[in-house]
Amino acid sequence: MLEKLKEEVLEANLNLCKYNLIKFTWGNVSGIDRDKGLIVIKPSGVPYEELSVENLVVLDLQGNIVEGYLNPSSDTPTHLVLYNKFPQIGGVVHTHSPWATIWAQAGKKLLALGTTHADHFYGSIPCTRMLRDEEIAKKYEKETGNVIVETFEDKNVMDIPGVLVHSHGPFTWGKNSLDAVKNAVVLEEIAKMNYYTMSLNETTESIQKTLLDKHFLRKHGKNAYYGQTQKVI
Amino acid sequence: MLEKLKEEVLEANLNLCKYNLIKFTWGNVSGIDRDKGLIVIKPSGVPYEELSVENLVVLDLQGNIVEGYLNPSSDTPTHLVLYNKFPQIGGVVHTHSPWATIWAQAGKKLLALGTTHADHFYGSIPCTRMLRDEEIAKKYEKETGNVIVETFEDKNVMDIPGVLVHSHGPFTWGKNSLDAVKNAVVLEEIAKMNYYTMSLNETTESIQKTLLDKHFLRKHGKNAYYGQTQKVI
Amino acid sequence: MLEKLKEEVLEANLNLCKYNLIKFTWGNVSGIDRDKGLIVIKPSGVPYEELSVENLVVLDLQGNIVEGYLNPSSDTPTHLVLYNKFPQIGGVVHTHSPWATIWAQAGKKLLALGTTHADHFYGSIPCTRMLRDEEIAKKYEKETGNVIVETFEDKNVMDIPGVLVHSHGPFTWGKNSLDAVKNAVVLEEIAKMNYYTMSLNETTESIQKTLLDKHFLRKHGKNAYYGQTQKVI
Amino acid sequence: MLEKLKEEVLEANLNLCKYNLIKFTWGNVSGIDRDKGLIVIKPSGVPYEELSVENLVVLDLQGNIVEGYLNPSSDTPTHLVLYNKFPQIGGVVHTHSPWATIWAQAGKKLLALGTTHADHFYGSIPCTRMLRDEEIAKKYEKETGNVIVETFEDKNVMDIPGVLVHSHGPFTWGKNSLDAVKNAVVLEEIAKMNYYTMSLNETTESIQKTLLDKHFLRKHGKNAYYGQTQKVI
Repeated sequence: MLEKLKEEVLEANLNLCKYNLIKFTWGNVSGIDRDKGLIVIKPSGVPYEELSVENLVVLDLQGNIVEGYLNPSSDTPTHLVLYNKFPQIGGVVHTHSPWATIWAQAGKKLLALGTTHADHFYGSIPCTRMLRDEEIAKKYEKETGNVIVETFEDKNVMDIPGVLVHSHGPFTWGKNSLDAVKNAVVLEEIAKMNYYTMSLNETTESIQKTLLDKHFLRKHGKNAYYGQTQKVI
Repeated sequence: MLEKLKEEVLEANLNLCKYNLIKFTWGNVSGIDRDKGLIVIKPSGVPYEELSVENLVVLDLQGNIVEGYLNPSSDTPTHLVLYNKFPQIGGVVHTHSPWATIWAQAGKKLLALGTTHADHFYGSIPCTRMLRDEEIAKKYEKETGNVIVETFEDKNVMDIPGVLVHSHGPFTWGKNSLDAVKNAVVLEEIAKMNYYTMSLNETTESIQKTLLDKHFLRKHGKNAYYGQTQKVI
Repeated sequence: MLEKLKEEVLEANLNLCKYNLIKFTWGNVSGIDRDKGLIVIKPSGVPYEELSVENLVVLDLQGNIVEGYLNPSSDTPTHLVLYNKFPQIGGVVHTHSPWATIWAQAGKKLLALGTTHADHFYGSIPCTRMLRDEEIAKKYEKETGNVIVETFEDKNVMDIPGVLVHSHGPFTWGKNSLDAVKNAVVLEEIAKMNYYTMSLNETTESIQKTLLDKHFLRKHGKNAYYGQTQKVI
Repeated sequence: MLEKLKEEVLEANLNLCKYNLIKFTWGNVSGIDRDKGLIVIKPSGVPYEELSVENLVVLDLQGNIVEGYLNPSSDTPTHLVLYNKFPQIGGVVHTHSPWATIWAQAGKKLLALGTTHADHFYGSIPCTRMLRDEEIAKKYEKETGNVIVETFEDKNVMDIPGVLVHSHGPFTWGKNSLDAVKNAVVLEEIAKMNYYTMSLNETTESIQKTLLDKHFLRKHGKNAYYGQTQKVI
C-alpha cells in the first residue's frame, strides 16, 4: 500500500544524507496521504544505507501501526501532533543538523537577515520554550509536538515551515516530504549565515518588510513570478 | 544561434556547482556577444543537473527574448543594467555563496587584507546601500542593477569585478562568463578569510598601497609578468 | 589468531578516515578479547591505506607483543592502562580530531548543552588536568592513561565514554572498537556544536536533568526504547 | 634530466590539491638536487590538471633556466633565497591555504598550543615583519625570501619548517618536496586549531617545555621512537 508515497518518503530520507544534514541515524522524515489519513515514516535506529520501501512504517493518525514489521521513529508522536494539528502539512523532517541545532541549544530564534531567508521563510524562525520537567517525564515526544503547536499559535506554518526545539534541534515541514527536506536544507544554511552575520555585526536587524515581502511573494503565493510554472523552488 | 557563447555560459553555470557556490537553483550566470548585442542567461528555477544549451535563454539588451522557450532568470534585469552601463563586462554572475552573503547581510565592505585579494581585486570590494522601499516595490531587479551602478560611480568595474548587494548577496563580473565565475570563487574565499582575519585582529587594516599595486599589476595590466602569456588567471 | 577481532579493529581504524577524524597517521584504535586477555592495536606510523589484518599488533595486558612484526602505536601504554583499569571497556580510540582537540588545548570540559550530547554521554565530558613535568619525562604515555583514570574517579566510564586530555586531544572508548569510534565521531560533533553554542550565548548552561535522563535512558539502559532491539546506536 | 626529482616534485604539487590547500593555480612546490645544484619548480599560472613532468622548469641556484619551455613560478626568487641560505632544505612550498593565510594577514605568530603542533614544529611558527615599500617595489619576490631569512636568524629551519609571510601567506619546507607539503598540511591544521583555541580561551599559553620536547623528540632526532624505523612521519 501507499507505494508512491513510500518511494517519495524513501527518497526524502536519503536526501538527508545527500544534503549532509545527518550523522548515523540522527534524523527522520515522514509523509502523509491525507485522503487515507495514513503516514509513512522511517523506522527507528535503522542506518540510511539499509533503508528501503520495505522497512518503512505505515501508521494512522492515532499512531496505530497499519503496516511494517519495525518500530517507527521514536519521534513519531511529534510528527503525529503536527499532522493532526496542521492539515496543510504534507511532510515532516527532524534532524540534528549542526547549525540549526546550535541555535536551538542557544535558545535563540533566527531573524530574517537577508533575501536567502526571505525566499523561503516569511519572517523569523522561532525557537520553542524549554519543555517543563513534567512534559519531559510523561509523554516527551508528544509534548515536543505540543510545544511546537504552542509556538505557532500566532504564525502560519506554511509561511514559516520550520522551528527550533529548545535544547534539541530543528523540525521542518512542507507540502510533501521532499519539500520538507528542502526546507531543512535552507534552514541549516540560514542558521549558518545568521551566526556569522551577527558575529560580524551584532546590530544587524531583520530586513525591511518590503524586501521580505518582495522575495517571499515572488516565489510563493498568487503572483509568484520566479521559476517556470509558479512551482515553489 | 550563439552556439559557442551558449557552451561557455553553460560551462560557467555548471562551474557554480563545481566550485560549491550554490545550493539548489540559487545563482545564475550570463554572457554577452557584444557584436550582436545579445546575452545568454540561465532559465529561472531550473536545477543545474537539467541545464543544457537548449534551455538557455537569449535576450537583447532591452530584455526582449530572442530565443528560448523558458523564462529567463528572475535576476535578468540586474544583468541587463550592468551590460548596458559597462561595455567592458562580458559576463555576470549572481550567487548566494555563504561567505559573501554574510558580509552583504552585515552591510560591510571587504578591505584588501592580503595579497590573495590584491591578486584579483584592486582595492576594497564595496557593499551597496540598502534599497529604498519604493525601489523594492516597483522594479526591484532593475533597481538592484542601478544601485550597483551607483556604487561604482567612483570605481573601475574591471579593477574591482564584484560587489555585495546589501541584505542580499554578491554579484561578480569579468571579461567573459567563465572569468566572472572565477571572480565569484575568489570573492567567496576573500570573504571567508576577511571574516577570520578581522576576528583574530580587529585592528587589521588594508595592506600597503605598494603591495596592492605589486600584486594586482603583476597579474593584470601592461607589465604583468605572472603566468605564461600575460593571460589573467 | 584473533582473526575476528582483527577484522573489527581494522574496520574501526579505517572508520577514522571514513568519518574524517584524522590526517596522515594521527590516530589509533584498539580492541580487546577479554577472555584471552589480548588486545589488537594499530602499528605505529603506518599510513591507513597500508593497514591490513596482517600488520596489526597483538599484545597482552602487560604490553608484551604476542604477535606482529611492527611496533605498536606509541600510545599503546595509554590504551593498556584503560583496559586494565576498566573491565567494561572493549575498544579504545585516540585521535587529534580538530574540534575535540581545540577544547583539549583550551583545557575546558564539554557541558551537555543539548539532546545530541544526552543521547550519547550522560553528563559533561571532562578535560584532564595538565600532566606534571615528571609525568611527561618518565612514562609519558602510561601517565596519560593514569591521568584519565584519575579524572574518572567519580565517573562511570560507560556513561561518559570519552575524555579530553589537556593540551593533547580526545580519547574515547566503548563496548568494542567500532563503538569507540562512533563515540569519537559524536564527541567531535558535540565539541563543534558546543563551541558555536557558547559563542552565540555564553550563558548557556547544561540541559535540565530530566532531559538528560530522558535522552540517555531512552537509548541506553534497561528501559531503552530507541531502535529495534535495544541495541545502542 | 632529473627525472626522479621531477616525478617527486610533480607528486608534491598534486598533493596540494589532494590535501585541499589551494584554489586554481595559487601555490607552488619545488625540490632540489643538492649534488647538481639544480631545482625543479612548477611553471607559473599552469592549472594543476595540466601539470606534467614535461612542463616543470629546471633552474640553477642563480635562477638561470636550465631546462623547460615555460616561465617558472613567479615566486621562484623566494625559493632560491631559501635554498641558497639553508643547505638543509630539500623542498619548498608556497600556498594561500586559508587558515595559515588568515594568521599571516592578521600578522600573528602561531604558539605551540598542543601536541599536534609539538609533533611537527619545535616552538612557535613566526610571522615575518611587513615588507618595506622599497623592498616591495624593487625585487619583491627576492625580498620575500630575505625577510624569511631575517625571521629565522635565531631559529633552526629544520626545527620550525614553516613561516607566515605578513599580509601574504605561508611558506613551508622540509627535507624534500613531499615533506614540505606535509608540513604545509600540518601548518594549516595548526592554524585552524589555534584560531578556535584562542577564541575559546584567550589566555591559552604555549604548552610546557617538557611536553614540547617529549612530542617533538619522540618523532624527530636521535632517540625518536615513533613509527617503525625512526622515519619522520
